[in-house]
Amino acid sequence: MSGNTFGKIFKVTTFGESHGPATGCVVDGCPAGLELELTDILSELARRRPGSGGASTTRKEDDNAEILSGVFEGKTLGTPIAILIRNKSHNSRDYDELKDIYRPGHADWTYEAKYGRRDHNGGGRSSARETAGRVAAGAVAKRLLAENNIFIRAWTAEIAGITAPGQGQADFDLDEAEKNNLHVPSAAVAACITEKIAELRLAGESAGGIVACTVTGLPAGLGEPVFEKIDALIAGAMLSLGAAKGIEFGSGFASARLLGSESNDTPLPCDLTNSKKISGGGGEHPAGFGPRGFGDRGSREGGLFPKADNVLPPHVPQLLFASNRAGGVLGGISNGAPLEFRVAFKPVPSISKQQRTVDRSGVLRELCVKGRHDICVCPRAVSVVEAMTALVLADLLLQQRCVRLFP
Amino acid sequence: MSGNTFGKIFKVTTFGESHGPATGCVVDGCPAGLELELTDILSELARRRPGSGGASTTRKEDDNAEILSGVFEGKTLGTPIAILIRNKSHNSRDYDELKDIYRPGHADWTYEAKYGRRDHNGGGRSSARETAGRVAAGAVAKRLLAENNIFIRAWTAEIAGITAPGQGQADFDLDEAEKNNLHVPSAAVAACITEKIAELRLAGESAGGIVACTVTGLPAGLGEPVFEKIDALIAGAMLSLGAAKGIEFGSGFASARLLGSESNDTPLPCDLTNSKKISGGGGEHPAGFGPRGFGDRGSREGGLFPKADNVLPPHVPQLLFASNRAGGVLGGISNGAPLEFRVAFKPVPSISKQQRTVDRSGVLRELCVKGRHDICVCPRAVSVVEAMTALVLADLLLQQRCVRLFP
Amino acid sequence: MSGNTFGKIFKVTTFGESHGPATGCVVDGCPAGLELELTDILSELARRRPGSGGASTTRKEDDNAEILSGVFEGKTLGTPIAILIRNKSHNSRDYDELKDIYRPGHADWTYEAKYGRRDHNGGGRSSARETAGRVAAGAVAKRLLAENNIFIRAWTAEIAGITAPGQGQADFDLDEAEKNNLHVPSAAVAACITEKIAELRLAGESAGGIVACTVTGLPAGLGEPVFEKIDALIAGAMLSLGAAKGIEFGSGFASARLLGSESNDTPLPCDLTNSKKISGGGGEHPAGFGPRGFGDRGSREGGLFPKADNVLPPHVPQLLFASNRAGGVLGGISNGAPLEFRVAFKPVPSISKQQRTVDRSGVLRELCVKGRHDICVCPRAVSVVEAMTALVLADLLLQQRCVRLFP
Amino acid sequence: MSGNTFGKIFKVTTFGESHGPATGCVVDGCPAGLELELTDILSELARRRPGSGGASTTRKEDDNAEILSGVFEGKTLGTPIAILIRNKSHNSRDYDELKDIYRPGHADWTYEAKYGRRDHNGGGRSSARETAGRVAAGAVAKRLLAENNIFIRAWTAEIAGITAPGQGQADFDLDEAEKNNLHVPSAAVAACITEKIAELRLAGESAGGIVACTVTGLPAGLGEPVFEKIDALIAGAMLSLGAAKGIEFGSGFASARLLGSESNDTPLPCDLTNSKKISGGGGEHPAGFGPRGFGDRGSREGGLFPKADNVLPPHVPQLLFASNRAGGVLGGISNGAPLEFRVAFKPVPSISKQQRTVDRSGVLRELCVKGRHDICVCPRAVSVVEAMTALVLADLLLQQRCVRLFP
Repeated sequence: MSGNTFGKIFKVTTFGESHGPATGCVVDGCPAGLELELTDILSELARRRPGSGGASTTRKEDDNAEILSGVFEGKTLGTPIAILIRNKSHNSRDYDELKDIYRPGHADWTYEAKYGRRDHNGGGRSSARETAGRVAAGAVAKRLLAENNIFIRAWTAEIAGITAPGQGQADFDLDEAEKNNLHVPSAAVAACITEKIAELRLAGESAGGIVACTVTGLPAGLGEPVFEKIDALIAGAMLSLGAAKGIEFGSGFASARLLGSESNDTPLPCDLTNSKKISGGGGEHPAGFGPRGFGDRGSREGGLFPKADNVLPPHVPQLLFASNRAGGVLGGISNGAPLEFRVAFKPVPSISKQQRTVDRSGVLRELCVKGRHDICVCPRAVSVVEAMTALVLADLLLQQRCVRLFP
Repeated sequence: MSGNTFGKIFKVTTFGESHGPATGCVVDGCPAGLELELTDILSELARRRPGSGGASTTRKEDDNAEILSGVFEGKTLGTPIAILIRNKSHNSRDYDELKDIYRPGHADWTYEAKYGRRDHNGGGRSSARETAGRVAAGAVAKRLLAENNIFIRAWTAEIAGITAPGQGQADFDLDEAEKNNLHVPSAAVAACITEKIAELRLAGESAGGIVACTVTGLPAGLGEPVFEKIDALIAGAMLSLGAAKGIEFGSGFASARLLGSESNDTPLPCDLTNSKKISGGGGEHPAGFGPRGFGDRGSREGGLFPKADNVLPPHVPQLLFASNRAGGVLGGISNGAPLEFRVAFKPVPSISKQQRTVDRSGVLRELCVKGRHDICVCPRAVSVVEAMTALVLADLLLQQRCVRLFP
Repeated sequence: MSGNTFGKIFKVTTFGESHGPATGCVVDGCPAGLELELTDILSELARRRPGSGGASTTRKEDDNAEILSGVFEGKTLGTPIAILIRNKSHNSRDYDELKDIYRPGHADWTYEAKYGRRDHNGGGRSSARETAGRVAAGAVAKRLLAENNIFIRAWTAEIAGITAPGQGQADFDLDEAEKNNLHVPSAAVAACITEKIAELRLAGESAGGIVACTVTGLPAGLGEPVFEKIDALIAGAMLSLGAAKGIEFGSGFASARLLGSESNDTPLPCDLTNSKKISGGGGEHPAGFGPRGFGDRGSREGGLFPKADNVLPPHVPQLLFASNRAGGVLGGISNGAPLEFRVAFKPVPSISKQQRTVDRSGVLRELCVKGRHDICVCPRAVSVVEAMTALVLADLLLQQRCVRLFP
Repeated sequence: MSGNTFGKIFKVTTFGESHGPATGCVVDGCPAGLELELTDILSELARRRPGSGGASTTRKEDDNAEILSGVFEGKTLGTPIAILIRNKSHNSRDYDELKDIYRPGHADWTYEAKYGRRDHNGGGRSSARETAGRVAAGAVAKRLLAENNIFIRAWTAEIAGITAPGQGQADFDLDEAEKNNLHVPSAAVAACITEKIAELRLAGESAGGIVACTVTGLPAGLGEPVFEKIDALIAGAMLSLGAAKGIEFGSGFASARLLGSESNDTPLPCDLTNSKKISGGGGEHPAGFGPRGFGDRGSREGGLFPKADNVLPPHVPQLLFASNRAGGVLGGISNGAPLEFRVAFKPVPSISKQQRTVDRSGVLRELCVKGRHDICVCPRAVSVVEAMTALVLADLLLQQRCVRLFP
């Protein structure tokens, strides 16, 4: 069936096999009048691209995206935005010997079990290459969110058991996360992980890790009960990423061991007259958060909801909370606090160390996956986590326009 | 917007506020010809119902469900199956004093922030009561899965930090999980947790916990890349549950600390001629798993895919794996191994201990939530976790009929 | 599959077999805060109910609808609105002899060809009874449209070749269409048709006819290119009605014989400063059109778009046209002129005259359909045509909130 | 909102403005294993392309389509099939003077009323150019249908009041319809219309017309009650075409004047043992119908339902009918008889004759639309009518796989 479309109003369809002619996406449902330039997309694709060092592959992905439709004189038309990204790495000879072998930890066999056939070159559609279309679409969503003063920041929180400082800790440095190839928010920890990765590469091994993500400026009210709650949609979006094995919001799995009185975030008394000014959708961003200068350049004309005051119904007070163990979600609806979640990724399944597997005839085979693969997906997953988050939020932001009689 | 429908082919729409006239569901897309009786639904609703002891509330939920349509002479017609469950607890006077107060950890304020208004009686649509419709729909899905020899078993894996034995451990007893009110797969641990819960109740506290779920008999090939992968859909389904804060598949968060060679599950050599007989969809179930004698009574006429041989394309070998760190999913597609995941739940936010909060005027209020609330959601979440899993799998099973030219 | 849901944002799912326990609907996506009372629904159901005379059956359909959810203290909550209508005519013994016979012109055989089985009592889901759920849902949609000063009026334009006066003709009397059971906008023509129907009834025959529909107050801009144009959605909605065999908009089939210069509606010069005041969404309704005093009581608080000025972007002039051959649609988008279309219905297939058909064994059978069936569907179709139109427009009205960056 | 996707399982998203860089489509949900070559698409695009004479424009549309994904070694992968068609006519200088003028009968103003802006070059997305993506997608659908022995034939039935012979009439010649540029099934009538068109061109006028379409080989059972009936979906598909103003099935509007006994198609007695062999899905096609040698080359491997016997449930007899006034549809479900419908198109709104209109300031303007436009859309609409029909049927064919417990 057709599982390549994401979203309800702000909808994205991606296409493309890893070593076919092209990958890309069609964004349908982006409102008309949004400023959008090719550089908005290129800058996001650049972040996703394998770095020259660190945990990444050295495959050259020179993503020369092209906007085929939906944008006219620098602004969206309200019609579908098709974005084309040509594949440059066509050297499929590399994969000939994998034609009849099922690589452990990969989807080679499950694709055949499902469809009866697969494109064995570079993993076809199950390749991480597929996420290029998501990132391109996410760039459009980020532009829409930026107009509303909503910004998404993801970073590498842990690789191979080495943990970066957490948000709120003294040495947590989000600007640093944009500087190093690993997207680790600490230069010292990044160095430490780099060393570990070199070691693993020599050993023919790979590593798992955790990506953390925080959204600031999010107004309260987003998320559609009961099946399309904001956390349900984010969870679905994250688990749609290749190597993701888990997600948690706020206190997450640790919540299971808290008491009720520890888990509840206490609402703070507020002055009704002034409270609206602090509201999400128009507020200040914590240090390090907010616009980053890539595709998410800020709002220029006031945004979708011109004034933050319009976000909450007039008779409802703006609540603030003494803590954020909920991770910004109550009953599946954003509560105005930062949306916070963490995604666990398994190690890259392609390792050069010898492994046992079977071929198409069911016969035992020994396999060393050649080529220069990533050691850990996290550094590159950072931009994809942001992109998928942006797609969810752009869609919910528009959906929220329809839930009240008087918007 | 309209977030009350789940699924694409096997679709469910739920309705109903906690203390309104009724809750229920409409199941659309269930194939014609499925045997379905009211008792299939009642038996699942009975499992969800608060127990007389243990961690549960003592609210009387005498669920007298009625099938309004879609079933004729004991079999489904292929038309929508509407199921009505009248609410018996209408004593909404209980909630009058909560009309203007936002309970901490609840969705009271976020519903108002979103819709501008809410039904304050018992949480309205954000109440756990809403899951009755899900469980009723899940019962229909379970019947469809049972026809295909697919069975779902969830249990309480942990409450308040007290962990039950895990699957594979000597003292893991799934039959026991059906006997005690806590759905804990060990009588000893159940006793221990019961004691802890009594303690928490006295202290006016509540507890979080973890529910584990395993699906056996699942054929390889289910899940729709790239956005509707089987784990993505399950994750979305689970995080749509009220108090869920995280989910992990297979090794889950622990995967982040494994090496590649540890994380990959090794495929086993197989004899092509015989392998199909072991396949999911027609295989044996591990001890304790399989049909439970509730609504998931087994297949009587051969099931959707009459022979397991038909599930895999004729030229694709049936693979088995030496381990299941993947939790039964590769590339978002089931690999024939049991589907395994764990869901973390936060403590019930309604506690009788005094808490600080605010009211509609933003003024500080002290609150003790009265009434007999659950201490931990896990025991009752077990049936809802199963129901949501059944909804995902029934839908994917039907979707899989459409992905190959020659089914 | 699941074809029982209609709409994208304002979504309706209907359920129920003709002689099962109940029919009804779930409306999901109706904005919160809409005033809605049970009488709004009952009054629409009353219009659909078979009259005591005229072309209608005498089956007693005493529709005691019940709102099960989604409405609290007289206003919608933003949650699903479930409406239950119990079936009173359970006397299914009437249909026993039809169990194994395929009635000509009915869906008896095609339901079996599709699903492998059917509920033979009164046509099951293929019965006109199914439309009760649509009319109930349409009543909710009409309330939403009335808040925006949009009103829908359908009437019987032709039965058995006898045509009523057309809109714009001197003797066209829309108030009369509400008075007579046939919904014919002329007392004289109604009398004439009544006579013809009596004749047909005696002869054991039935008749076809045409229903016309006009929507006034519709703002320009509704309809979603390219597949969900306003006329595409209306056409799909109308052909989903049992006996509908054709639809045409504006000049319709006659357009095929017009010249380009005759077919184009000429835009009129306008004074930019004042033009917005005449706009759809806030304008005057032609004599006889507008609110009718049933469920579509008018707007009380200013409607979804509080001022008509807000409907058009500030820099776009309000256009008026010298004619309306387009029927209110240009490029699939409403142009502010009245939406006008006509639907052709075939004769009721149940006739008492003897017909030849076959039974389940393929054997020739003679059949006289007993019972008191409608002679022509048109009089009852009027309310269903209005309901389906309301569902399309309510959905498009909400969708239009999402198409521009600055609404 | 996002109205650029069509279908539920076999889904198509089109993109592209008339004079932007490209148009195209993404087909998601096409089963894996379908033989598909670029020429299948090119041959359909060639039929849609403006002819050198007749009623068509002389704009050069040299459609060099490219398949970007989803096809591997000549067969579909089950992944999205993206098709790119570069626009060659970029000479947008032609349209500069139309920038501020609203052309009568066009969507210029309604696009601005909706989105606040438009691409004025060649009509942007409201141009007939948009249908290229539909025809490309339709070519894929036709391949799937051909595998099931289902074939679609449309032709020009009437232009400017000159009617071609109807199906069943002696001089009806479907092969001729493929030979002349007008797609008229009679050389004599084609000559007559050609003359009329020359006349209209001189007069600066345009003409409307009617396209007829017949589908043969369609099995009984397709169509999803109640909102996605086969006729409802076809009607929605046809009215989504630019100039379509009406549609009718079988006897259509003439049904309104038939008696019940005339309107009902009489089922014929059948020999149960042999009847299945005549069934749709595997039967013979009437003379002139069936495969045409373009993209709809026939089945090579037995088709989706390898034997026609499999289409009907084993206990249901195959019915044939003495007539086809229903046009192949009963209760919204195909009845195995040919699906027959007619679509009315208004005259092309672009005429060189002087017209009055207004500009962006609301001021009266005189306009002669320059350039070489089609005189009548029908000849080119023929291929688009076929394409949209193919999209509906491919989707319903796959949906039908899911409606019974035992397929």
